[in-house]
Amino acid sequence: MQRSERFERGAARLAEMGGDIEDIVAPLADVAPDLATYVGEFAFGDLYTRPGLDLRQRQLVTIAALVTLGDTERQLRFHTKAALNVGVTPSEIVETVIHLLAFAGNPRVFNAMLTVKGVFAERGLLPVG
Amino acid sequence: MQRSERFERGAARLAEMGGDIEDIVAPLADVAPDLATYVGEFAFGDLYTRPGLDLRQRQLVTIAALVTLGDTERQLRFHTKAALNVGVTPSEIVETVIHLLAFAGNPRVFNAMLTVKGVFAERGLLPVG
Amino acid sequence: MQRSERFERGAARLAEMGGDIEDIVAPLADVAPDLATYVGEFAFGDLYTRPGLDLRQRQLVTIAALVTLGDTERQLRFHTKAALNVGVTPSEIVETVIHLLAFAGNPRVFNAMLTVKGVFAERGLLPVG
Amino acid sequence: MQRSERFERGAARLAEMGGDIEDIVAPLADVAPDLATYVGEFAFGDLYTRPGLDLRQRQLVTIAALVTLGDTERQLRFHTKAALNVGVTPSEIVETVIHLLAFAGNPRVFNAMLTVKGVFAERGLLPVG
Amino acid sequence: MQRSERFERGAARLAEMGGDIEDIVAPLADVAPDLATYVGEFAFGDLYTRPGLDLRQRQLVTIAALVTLGDTERQLRFHTKAALNVGVTPSEIVETVIHLLAFAGNPRVFNAMLTVKGVFAERGLLPVG
Amino acid sequence: MQRSERFERGAARLAEMGGDIEDIVAPLADVAPDLATYVGEFAFGDLYTRPGLDLRQRQLVTIAALVTLGDTERQLRFHTKAALNVGVTPSEIVETVIHLLAFAGNPRVFNAMLTVKGVFAERGLLPVG
Repeated sequence: MQRSERFERGAARLAEMGGDIEDIVAPLADVAPDLATYVGEFAFGDLYTRPGLDLRQRQLVTIAALVTLGDTERQLRFHTKAALNVGVTPSEIVETVIHLLAFAGNPRVFNAMLTVKGVFAERGLLPVG
Repeated sequence: MQRSERFERGAARLAEMGGDIEDIVAPLADVAPDLATYVGEFAFGDLYTRPGLDLRQRQLVTIAALVTLGDTERQLRFHTKAALNVGVTPSEIVETVIHLLAFAGNPRVFNAMLTVKGVFAERGLLPVG
Repeated sequence: MQRSERFERGAARLAEMGGDIEDIVAPLADVAPDLATYVGEFAFGDLYTRPGLDLRQRQLVTIAALVTLGDTERQLRFHTKAALNVGVTPSEIVETVIHLLAFAGNPRVFNAMLTVKGVFAERGLLPVG
Repeated sequence: MQRSERFERGAARLAEMGGDIEDIVAPLADVAPDLATYVGEFAFGDLYTRPGLDLRQRQLVTIAALVTLGDTERQLRFHTKAALNVGVTPSEIVETVIHLLAFAGNPRVFNAMLTVKGVFAERGLLPVG
Repeated sequence: MQRSERFERGAARLAEMGGDIEDIVAPLADVAPDLATYVGEFAFGDLYTRPGLDLRQRQLVTIAALVTLGDTERQLRFHTKAALNVGVTPSEIVETVIHLLAFAGNPRVFNAMLTVKGVFAERGLLPVG
Repeated sequence: MQRSERFERGAARLAEMGGDIEDIVAPLADVAPDLATYVGEFAFGDLYTRPGLDLRQRQLVTIAALVTLGDTERQLRFHTKAALNVGVTPSEIVETVIHLLAFAGNPRVFNAMLTVKGVFAERGLLPVG
């Protein structure tokens, strides 16, 4: 896999968020290494390094999108951890998910809350508030 | 958690449907107790107690929404049981899911049918019809 | 276009609902006549003629699916009219849409309510209730 | 329509966001006045008045949900205006929408950007940045 | 269960794709045998036997739809196997999924890639390319 | 706007498809020029120039994703034209859309067929087949 400057920038950004690009690279290595390249270059290298929103804002936006989209438990777990890592509080994450009752409906919100609770439990962050 | 009149009305409605509000309250208690409050007050207390549709109609409508939305296995299990509890027949549930072939596509319908079958099996309601 | 027995049965069912199969056949005639055949045969001929749910129940289920799916204004208009034609009351349609606040979120519900209001207005059914 | 304390609180919150509850009440008055009540009470009165996220954060979260959900042009127009009214900058809105390229795909993002551009144009906020 | 000519044609088509109609019939037999009938008759008998697209093209189209729809892991596993069985290469499947980064967003694509990788692993097709 | 090599490659690919990158650049110029850059670089420069699927295959995959996603009329119009421009026949486009009856439901398929019909009409390609 070629690791471009954009990829290295994305890997560094991901590291700031507490993630490890190798966790994306490794499972895709024998099936679609280019997918890992694109995630590193585009999602983390291009988009996540843009100014204009800080990482805390980006994680609230990301969580809102994942909850609304549905079928994103894996991603919601990762981005909840990343949100905590960049300084979003458990309470802000909970607030974001509750807020979506008005837009995404109860099932999306309820399932998401149990997923973020699982992350909080692993980190010893319960009870919230 | 404050238990308002709306909440108590919702808990009572949920009990009529064979559910137990504590099953919503307990898992959310240490992460988002207000979410349980809103579900009790708004979904069950405000919406589910409205006149104009009876509980059997509401459960068909609910099942249709859950199947179409997708990623709602937990909710579909609950609302299938609730539907049975308020007098919807297994056959009506099956008919509702089959009808959605025209609107939600085969994958949603097939997955939903296996979920409702699981509920029927637990209740000794198989075979249907 | 071959008009099978299933198609004729579907056309008859659609007529009971106040629709006209020619309104499906005509716009598809020069692009995809087989699509009209399938809609007539499968959706209206197979599914809509099944016993087990009456047409009033089917229309509530259909409306719930369309509201949840989104981007279905054309279909929601048609099926609101069909619902009225088979004896669903405006109030039951309104109740169905309001109920979905718990499952599909406010934007889907608000847009749908304006669409059904448009149909009610055309039929002189306002105000509801 | 009964205007509860929760409704009045919601109407006040909406006014802070530059909205007017009458714009929700009026179009629903003859079809589903209770829907306006619920939007006022629950979405704006309960959810939007919660502490834990400020209005600027809530609008980014809301915009993310609306873009991801799709078929929400009307809501995206309203909430873009509300975002501006509570101090979100055009640049932050644009950043939020661009960020969603990674989660919601190009079509949702492209359509949303044209919608927010329309709002910016009406307010004389172009060019952005 | 009545097995019409359309059903038998669908079962034969499914067999060409390496599937077995009994795997659809059996799990539905005691809950909704008519659903198996419709899947056999309509999806495989009517749609999948149409000329105009060959089976390789149909499987790319099907995979694109399943990835975009979400909550379709079961179906994506089946149709990935079917795609391989009709001559689609692992590389073409991977390309199809990567292409969807532009339309369905990263979470749908990432989850789908892990699902197709699982199928490839079972068949000894890793590494791809 | 910086026009990278990737962007120029994407613009060239888009031109092969009968599109004009300026039609993306111009409407975004005063609101989000970077979005046009990303669409040019990533969607058309990275993804659309990959080997492994030819442009005809990519357009079938793209159309399948757009129909399934919904709320994509603008994109479906563009990609239907692009499909025709790279040699996909009207009949193959129609077949792709019909095939999706099994996966995305009738409303998505019906709306999409009217959209592609509109493109065919503009090009004098009706009747199809």
